[in-house]
Amino acid sequence: MSTATEPPSRRSRADRARQVADVLRQQTLAGAFAGTLPPEHQLAAEFDVSRNTVRAALALLKDEGLIDRAPRVGTQVSGRKFDHGIDTLLGLKETLREHGEVRNEVRAALHLVPPPAVARRLELDRGEPAVYIERLRYLGDLPLSLDLTYLVPDLGEELLRRDLAGNDVFALIEEVSGRPLGSAELAIESVNADAHTAAALQAPEGAALLLLERLTTLDDGRPVDLEYVRMRGDRITMRGNLFRTNQPWELT
Amino acid sequence: MSTATEPPSRRSRADRARQVADVLRQQTLAGAFAGTLPPEHQLAAEFDVSRNTVRAALALLKDEGLIDRAPRVGTQVSGRKFDHGIDTLLGLKETLREHGEVRNEVRAALHLVPPPAVARRLELDRGEPAVYIERLRYLGDLPLSLDLTYLVPDLGEELLRRDLAGNDVFALIEEVSGRPLGSAELAIESVNADAHTAAALQAPEGAALLLLERLTTLDDGRPVDLEYVRMRGDRITMRGNLFRTNQPWELT
Repeated sequence: MSTATEPPSRRSRADRARQVADVLRQQTLAGAFAGTLPPEHQLAAEFDVSRNTVRAALALLKDEGLIDRAPRVGTQVSGRKFDHGIDTLLGLKETLREHGEVRNEVRAALHLVPPPAVARRLELDRGEPAVYIERLRYLGDLPLSLDLTYLVPDLGEELLRRDLAGNDVFALIEEVSGRPLGSAELAIESVNADAHTAAALQAPEGAALLLLERLTTLDDGRPVDLEYVRMRGDRITMRGNLFRTNQPWELT
Repeated sequence: MSTATEPPSRRSRADRARQVADVLRQQTLAGAFAGTLPPEHQLAAEFDVSRNTVRAALALLKDEGLIDRAPRVGTQVSGRKFDHGIDTLLGLKETLREHGEVRNEVRAALHLVPPPAVARRLELDRGEPAVYIERLRYLGDLPLSLDLTYLVPDLGEELLRRDLAGNDVFALIEEVSGRPLGSAELAIESVNADAHTAAALQAPEGAALLLLERLTTLDDGRPVDLEYVRMRGDRITMRGNLFRTNQPWELT
């Protein structure tokens, strides 16, 4: 520590704990600790804070489900988080290939006349049917996301005959359409899990979720797939690169 | 509604309510309703569900802080959400220019020896000082985000002399370095607000937040700015486009 524009003493322990927690979170997610975090006194020295501040920081990470603490055992990394890219358009199974098998519990797979707002986004005529698929997606035994999917009727009809439990919808769309996906419009929100969603995802009610809305088009620009995806915030990190200019996109 | 691979009757009201809520959320955010949502019976017809299901869907959106409901007045859009891009690297003030003035309450602006994990990411020598800035960022009177910022010493030193309350750190970095920013590594997580953060952001304890970790480099590739940003989930949506291939990035 050192010279300060305002005295460090004016900063509350909670402020300093948050500051420590953010760096420890990033280190934990990056795999800097082999299962066990360094002891409190070492963290206190590294961050130039008191042990009480370290304890407050660790309490924040424990509340996030990232670490566990126990007397004698110390501080253990408890929660694994997985990276999901925001640079490229990949399904969950493709994304987590190296971590294990993604399987889908198909909760619904049916025809419906979509509400007008969905029909417009999929460029369907009013009253034209669509296919609706709802899946709870697991990595091994861990529920990661609950996905609500509206598909255009021609492709959706074909998808209903495929193995929805074992494949990404993206892969199946490319298979049945014979075309690659093009791009997607993505919105990412953070919402608290309602009781029913929390139960499905085996998370506490109110748990912070990543809520994605994603409209995906084929490479010919046709919108085919509108999804609402709820991911457990304690298990998924969205990760990618941003550029200051639009240059990369202007080149496409 | 219509033919179904599994009978729609097997789907619980909660499942159907979530399905309706997701589409209504997107319509609300897109400004489809001029302040007031359509009456229940109209929504029930559009979504082909019962009025009880519509009520359950609206209850979910009310819990998210997006709408208010009152007898006779009906269902009002209550919460404004603002889009923050994940396509390009922009500061909050630049992003929200058309919505109003972003002002920053500077909670800390000081020199410190950063913890080793921060020093490594900013490519500083161990023991080399950095500048730490903490800001609570408002759009008008609405607190939107709490930002913790570590800056390399040469640029950080200059920034401490600038108007941190009225400018984006990004703009100030470009001003004092004389170079444009290049790119940033971004991680987006969803976390529940701890009590202290919730108080600062004037949000309920446990409220879902977007937590961004962002390491920004100048156009010469030098990392200069490591930030931890907590945004109110009920006020910010991250939005952008994804492409199926890496092609756009390979061209840069």
